[in-house]
Amino acid sequence: MFDTVFTDLPRRDWVTDRADGATGETLRIATVGCGNYARNVSIPAMVDGEYAEPTVVVSGDPEKRASLTEEFGVTAIDYDAYEAGAATDEYDAVYVATPNRLHLPHAETAARHGKHVVCEKPLEATVDRAERLVTACADADVRLMTAYRMQTDPVMRRLREFVDAGGIGTVQRASGDFTFPVLGGDAGPDQWRLDGHLAGGGALFDVGVYPLNTARFLTSDDPVAVSASTRSPDSAFDEVDQHVDMRVAFDGWMGNFSASFSGHANTELELLGSDGRVTVRSAFQPGADREVTVETPDGTLTVEGRGADETVEEFDYFAYAVTTGATIEPDGADGLVDMRTLAAVQESAATGERVSLDE
Amino acid sequence: MFDTVFTDLPRRDWVTDRADGATGETLRIATVGCGNYARNVSIPAMVDGEYAEPTVVVSGDPEKRASLTEEFGVTAIDYDAYEAGAATDEYDAVYVATPNRLHLPHAETAARHGKHVVCEKPLEATVDRAERLVTACADADVRLMTAYRMQTDPVMRRLREFVDAGGIGTVQRASGDFTFPVLGGDAGPDQWRLDGHLAGGGALFDVGVYPLNTARFLTSDDPVAVSASTRSPDSAFDEVDQHVDMRVAFDGWMGNFSASFSGHANTELELLGSDGRVTVRSAFQPGADREVTVETPDGTLTVEGRGADETVEEFDYFAYAVTTGATIEPDGADGLVDMRTLAAVQESAATGERVSLDE
Repeated sequence: MFDTVFTDLPRRDWVTDRADGATGETLRIATVGCGNYARNVSIPAMVDGEYAEPTVVVSGDPEKRASLTEEFGVTAIDYDAYEAGAATDEYDAVYVATPNRLHLPHAETAARHGKHVVCEKPLEATVDRAERLVTACADADVRLMTAYRMQTDPVMRRLREFVDAGGIGTVQRASGDFTFPVLGGDAGPDQWRLDGHLAGGGALFDVGVYPLNTARFLTSDDPVAVSASTRSPDSAFDEVDQHVDMRVAFDGWMGNFSASFSGHANTELELLGSDGRVTVRSAFQPGADREVTVETPDGTLTVEGRGADETVEEFDYFAYAVTTGATIEPDGADGLVDMRTLAAVQESAATGERVSLDE
Repeated sequence: MFDTVFTDLPRRDWVTDRADGATGETLRIATVGCGNYARNVSIPAMVDGEYAEPTVVVSGDPEKRASLTEEFGVTAIDYDAYEAGAATDEYDAVYVATPNRLHLPHAETAARHGKHVVCEKPLEATVDRAERLVTACADADVRLMTAYRMQTDPVMRRLREFVDAGGIGTVQRASGDFTFPVLGGDAGPDQWRLDGHLAGGGALFDVGVYPLNTARFLTSDDPVAVSASTRSPDSAFDEVDQHVDMRVAFDGWMGNFSASFSGHANTELELLGSDGRVTVRSAFQPGADREVTVETPDGTLTVEGRGADETVEEFDYFAYAVTTGATIEPDGADGLVDMRTLAAVQESAATGERVSLDE
């Protein structure tokens, strides 16, 4: 099974699965919110992609607008112009990359303009606002993708096929950590990720959602209950969780996930099964080689390389789905499952009690 | 710091630390309970040791008595004879390796005979009985060691020195798993580990205590609260927990530990710090090479080998401490901390609520 799954790592199953032979056309994307990640990772990924193209950026900062125009040849407008419908003939879809609590108004604007939406994770700062975001897109009949880049990571897609084919038997347990020193490098405390109102949560919302969503993706399963605790020993994190530890119960198995906004940088994910084990180091680091080890009774396999850049894949996946009508698996409903789980984690951390997610 | 700590891996710091130059003499040990582990791991370890010597075995099985006498040249007696004081001039200490709920009577007998005790983990099946065991040894003025072999594992002792010296900064989080397929190989369901009364608990008591106690050892810290859940999907585990997941709060950091009695065999431990990370694969496997990776801002180190067999070290540590009066760190009090933590884990799993361990 090793051979059949992990050879041809970068295989774009989401393209080849199409039966009608349609090929994607280029989707022109407006990026709303031009922080570090959008400028240095997402927009370059659109440039590198086959189906996506960055044509417009929306920023409140004249210097950023000028430099992005120079670097990528895009039309740059401010938020008022975006609201008012400027340059709508230059883009087909909107990439919402603003602070979490601004996702709703920017997605609503996109929907009002009839533009499709790929929205950064988590969907919003609260469940209610995320639900309104999903509804706005549905009502306007525009496509919505939650920007879970791990779901388009070739290594993760191959691992999912392996797990789905019974490669490690029945899943018993997942564990994962994403420790992101948010104050590292040049980053000071004056950033929206530390603003409880704008962000909705701290390490939990920003990075804790990675092991959670990726474990859900690899197992095609949803949480049924959570128990969690958070702590923020350092004053920079007074408004948000600096550390979170959560036990997420699924149907018949358990996920132990953690995340931190300070400490030694770390991203890892592990699945333990009745007949095997999968570990991924550098699991969630943008554009990094994943270090995958698969243990089964038949032997141990190490997967090397990354196949392709998951962010290039992410925007191509979105663009291809929009232009061909293909399925978007990380859709609004997928994003809402996580929003409800994150809210339950916050409730459990506050009350000390297990919180059920049964409908 | 790498060099100074991890060179001379097998260093017996517990011998060289003695200032008075005393050398240990041989301690003669009676093994009470001759299951697989005692016969195949512990008694051979006493043979291999410098300070310990197996001289007596206690078993209810005539065939085992005969074969152990033949193999190790020991005097073999049954439980009635042990009770009655047979062969007490042939041993100085007792290794209690019976099912958990029988530790108390066998330790009491040892104490009554004036013999020192090294008792398998966990100390007993309940907190109350464990406390009585500790009291019995104290009242008889005999030494008591809880048989935590990881505390005498050279790799773990070096890691502790490294962590204690600030090698990974401040500890933020520990995680660990011990999955032991208790029904693997020839082992059927007719074993005391699956008997709720005799064992006191399942995967939690038998193997879950490893990541818990080892993390405590590496950090010299004790739990303040726990949250946990257990599940036993398979009928063989009706009386005990088949799987346990626990979140153990310490003062300022968190441990996420898990254990299972079924599934792909796995033992691992990880410490995440403000400035580094330590992972140990094959962490708790008896006599195995630990696979240690230490990440710090200065680079990554892989520690190879095991230095020495931790079970040989365990009995030599005990024997040396008894004959020279040296400290026994995994003493009764250490074992009781875990017993209280395990009981809190069971309570939390039953109630769904966080359980405090504050005195």
